[in-house]
Amino acid sequence: VVTSELVDNCLNTAFEDIPDDVVSHAKKCLLNWASVAIGGSRHRAVEILVEMTRELDVGRQVSLFGRAEKTDLLWAALINGTSSHVHDFDDTHLKTMNHPGSAIAPVCFALAEKLELSGRQLLRAFILGMEADIRIGNAVSPSHYDAGWHITSTAGALGAAVAAGLLLGLNRDEMVFALGIAATQASGLLEMLGTMTKLLHAGKAAQNGLLAALLAGRGYDSTSRALESPRGFAAVFAPQSDLTKVNVRWGHDWELLKVAFKPYACGIVLHPVIDACIALRTGTKPSDVKDIELVVCPYTLILTGKVNPKTGLEAKYSVRHVAALAFIDGAASVDQFTDARALSPEIESFAARVNPIVDNTIRDDEALMRVTRIDGTVDDFHISHATGSKENPMTVSQLTDKFMALCGDRLGKKNALGFVERLGRLESESGISALLALGTAR
Amino acid sequence: VVTSELVDNCLNTAFEDIPDDVVSHAKKCLLNWASVAIGGSRHRAVEILVEMTRELDVGRQVSLFGRAEKTDLLWAALINGTSSHVHDFDDTHLKTMNHPGSAIAPVCFALAEKLELSGRQLLRAFILGMEADIRIGNAVSPSHYDAGWHITSTAGALGAAVAAGLLLGLNRDEMVFALGIAATQASGLLEMLGTMTKLLHAGKAAQNGLLAALLAGRGYDSTSRALESPRGFAAVFAPQSDLTKVNVRWGHDWELLKVAFKPYACGIVLHPVIDACIALRTGTKPSDVKDIELVVCPYTLILTGKVNPKTGLEAKYSVRHVAALAFIDGAASVDQFTDARALSPEIESFAARVNPIVDNTIRDDEALMRVTRIDGTVDDFHISHATGSKENPMTVSQLTDKFMALCGDRLGKKNALGFVERLGRLESESGISALLALGTAR
Repeated sequence: VVTSELVDNCLNTAFEDIPDDVVSHAKKCLLNWASVAIGGSRHRAVEILVEMTRELDVGRQVSLFGRAEKTDLLWAALINGTSSHVHDFDDTHLKTMNHPGSAIAPVCFALAEKLELSGRQLLRAFILGMEADIRIGNAVSPSHYDAGWHITSTAGALGAAVAAGLLLGLNRDEMVFALGIAATQASGLLEMLGTMTKLLHAGKAAQNGLLAALLAGRGYDSTSRALESPRGFAAVFAPQSDLTKVNVRWGHDWELLKVAFKPYACGIVLHPVIDACIALRTGTKPSDVKDIELVVCPYTLILTGKVNPKTGLEAKYSVRHVAALAFIDGAASVDQFTDARALSPEIESFAARVNPIVDNTIRDDEALMRVTRIDGTVDDFHISHATGSKENPMTVSQLTDKFMALCGDRLGKKNALGFVERLGRLESESGISALLALGTAR
Repeated sequence: VVTSELVDNCLNTAFEDIPDDVVSHAKKCLLNWASVAIGGSRHRAVEILVEMTRELDVGRQVSLFGRAEKTDLLWAALINGTSSHVHDFDDTHLKTMNHPGSAIAPVCFALAEKLELSGRQLLRAFILGMEADIRIGNAVSPSHYDAGWHITSTAGALGAAVAAGLLLGLNRDEMVFALGIAATQASGLLEMLGTMTKLLHAGKAAQNGLLAALLAGRGYDSTSRALESPRGFAAVFAPQSDLTKVNVRWGHDWELLKVAFKPYACGIVLHPVIDACIALRTGTKPSDVKDIELVVCPYTLILTGKVNPKTGLEAKYSVRHVAALAFIDGAASVDQFTDARALSPEIESFAARVNPIVDNTIRDDEALMRVTRIDGTVDDFHISHATGSKENPMTVSQLTDKFMALCGDRLGKKNALGFVERLGRLESESGISALLALGTAR
């Protein structure tokens, strides 16, 4: 009964039942999501998808963030989800490495636009979809990820179905079936990290979850036990799972509050490393450094162990390269992850001096760095909580700076600031058309 | 290098390299596929998908089998694939329980129509896509299925990408990437058997494989080792696999020749049971029967162990119910699997007297039946190879009868016969528009 209990929990949670701090955090999630969706909206992967919509002659009812084109509901979910996953700059539920916003937000914006819903309706569906997504992820973690599944994509499809179902006003049975239709579409392999195909994962999760809810709302039936049946999501997708985590303390504990935002445009496990390298820069030149020993959590090498990356995208999966970029540039934003920068001899030579070591006692927002200089001096840096982690979170002001850096030029400064301001009072907005006018290209 | 070797094998196989018996068998596959696609084209699941295309206002370039509407390429693949999976009447690669035609044919017809390709081009892509699909299935079987995956859907997406890539004229790198994009979309849980969601599996496999090839053809990149990498398809989707099976004796052995066709509208593991029950009817009335002991292969109970089915769809997954239907009606076609027939007291009471027993030494096209009559007499029936099995295959004439039974009324008898005749000489047709005109509704 895990699936139907989850559905009941969602249906029985009104906007008024959601604590203020959860609503505030959800708006930070949406601001962060919009900044990366707009920031990624000109990537080649996104251009290809938009070209496809022209060739297919799809409907034109829903907006694309950062762009002038419109598409149908399902393509908008796919494209906006994909663009928000471009820069590895999306929100992160740290314990599970899940980026729930990238799958849930595209569905919420698409349906709210099409159905002319209020900001409050959008926020409720977003919050409950995020909560479902993260809790389902909790139930199958960590064995699901360890088995090779990209949790953002798999759990994302289920969360997206919940959010879409709420906005479509599905009844209990329809919601349960939507989760079944979403579960059977759940997919996404970690093998794809470092290629354009990984970007598609968030978009596909959004699109598949939305399709599931649209079909269920029209009477398409499915299993009533998507999560818990012996051949359901948990059993097939995870060697070990604990489905009690899906509904435990619903309405009391909010997993959404554990979602963090990234100051750096790469995987969260690299952030403490970047903090350490930026700290090291003060008073140390690249030529001073003999070698660097980095003590990191096991995930860091599993996810970012690539050596000799050849593209900007691949560089994001190389802890050695990212350490070099952070030390030499003093930043790890979109500009660091270009193909040219990845192949820079200066970066490559520095990366060769970085030695990562795994330590099971290190948390994923933590890193120890020991630098040995040519002159024989040694220094240790300990980052206990990376910038953007739960204990050291980004503020609205920092998120606004991130939005302006990624979207200011695209939207124009005035529109960009207007977008941030309107999003900040989303729960009072009767519709989102004005917001979308500011967040799309002219 | 399994993935790139598979791509090389496909690219290097010209139509002229394909033996005549393979081409003939492929045309039987297509005839069977068309009969079930047209036969399933008015199912509620298909109607819902067509309604969705209206709401979304999709493009209208490609035909739907058995219907008057057109949709874009991707929706046509989804809908034609779904309708061909409606009646559980599709082709079957017996060893792996794979129904490759349902994923591959929709892609081939959609692209051949859109790109105005010849029958020969369509046939080559179909044959090589089928071969890739089945061989990938072989490599991960049986542990893949046992783990809960619907192989028709998962391997289907990969085979569909191969077929689509060949028709789109992708180069080697693009084909390899298409397999990566398809692998990350591979999905489909066995949990969905008995619900409308299972019907979607074939359609989604077709659509996802086609999308993968379309994206790769536009420069969308992916992993180059979709099948063999440590976090690729085989490793993540199957506890045990043997990837040598993908390319072994390519061009010498043709797995396509092992694809069988079903005389009965339910899972292939039930066919020997139905043959036995039809044989039993001669001289035996339902009221004569005290009980029936059925000795079947393990898959029969794994797949069709449902008790007390409440719908026609659920009845297909109940070996007891199907035995009752076959004995009482002397048939197991589409008319047997209505909701009303599933709930018939006569069927339910007979089903309660059927006792299935698993025996590991029984093949999946074999069954032993022992009937004990009220009068104390006992008879044994042994079906060594079910009708439609590899050793007892359906002929073109039987397949034509199946086509006429499923499609004669829908298309009109004259058009239906014209369709069969044109499909029979597909390799000589310069295009498929005349064929499609006969196979769609006015």
